[in-house]
Amino acid sequence: MIRRKEQMTAIDRPNLRGGDGVIRAYNLLEPQELCGKANLCAIMTVEPGCSIGEHPHGPDAEIYYMLEGTLEAWDDGEKTVLNPGDAMFTAQGKTHAVRNTSDKPAKMLAVVIA
Amino acid sequence: MIRRKEQMTAIDRPNLRGGDGVIRAYNLLEPQELCGKANLCAIMTVEPGCSIGEHPHGPDAEIYYMLEGTLEAWDDGEKTVLNPGDAMFTAQGKTHAVRNTSDKPAKMLAVVIA
Repeated sequence: MIRRKEQMTAIDRPNLRGGDGVIRAYNLLEPQELCGKANLCAIMTVEPGCSIGEHPHGPDAEIYYMLEGTLEAWDDGEKTVLNPGDAMFTAQGKTHAVRNTSDKPAKMLAVVIA
Repeated sequence: MIRRKEQMTAIDRPNLRGGDGVIRAYNLLEPQELCGKANLCAIMTVEPGCSIGEHPHGPDAEIYYMLEGTLEAWDDGEKTVLNPGDAMFTAQGKTHAVRNTSDKPAKMLAVVIA
C-alpha cells in the first residue's frame, strides 16, 4: 500500500514520554495498517525547546533516522547529538530520549518494531 | 546505539531481485545489530536506469520511505510513482518493485521487518 506525503495527518502529542512541549507526528502508516509488524511508523517533528522524555523499550525496539535539524539525544543514558543522516537504534531493554536545544525544527523518522 | 551517516559503508547489489544495474545500499544498522527485529535497515540509492525487480514479501514485510528523487513503483502489481515523502508498505503476501526512469538518482530508506 501507498501513503502519499500529503495524505499523512498530523497528530499532536503533548509531553510525550514526560517530555516538554508538543511533538507533531505524521503517521506514514497507521498502526492497524502495519499488520502487527510495527506499532509506529511516523515522521516526528521536534520544535525548538521540545523533547521526548527518556523511556525504555521492550519487547519492542525503535529506529530513529534523522531527516532535518539537530537533536541532543540520550542513547541508553549516554549523551550525544544527532545530525541529518544519523541513525539511533534502541533495542529491547535500552532507553532513549531526544531534546531540541537548537533554534530550528528537527525532523526524524521513527519506526517502533513490534 | 548510534550509527553516524559517515560510518555507513556502501554495499553494491547488482541485479537486485532480478532488477537492472546496481543498487547501492548504505546500512544504517547491520542485520546482526537489529536484535532479530529487522533484517535490513538501509538507504538504497537507485541510479537512473536501475531497478529492484518485483519480489514477494513474507513472512517479513518492508517499508520504503522516499527521501530524494522519483521512482516508478509497482505496489502488488499496481503501477504508481513514488515522490519524496511518500511511503510504501509491502505486507506479508504482497509484492513490490521499483525502477528509476528519471534522469536523477533516487534515494529511499528501506526497513525489512522480520
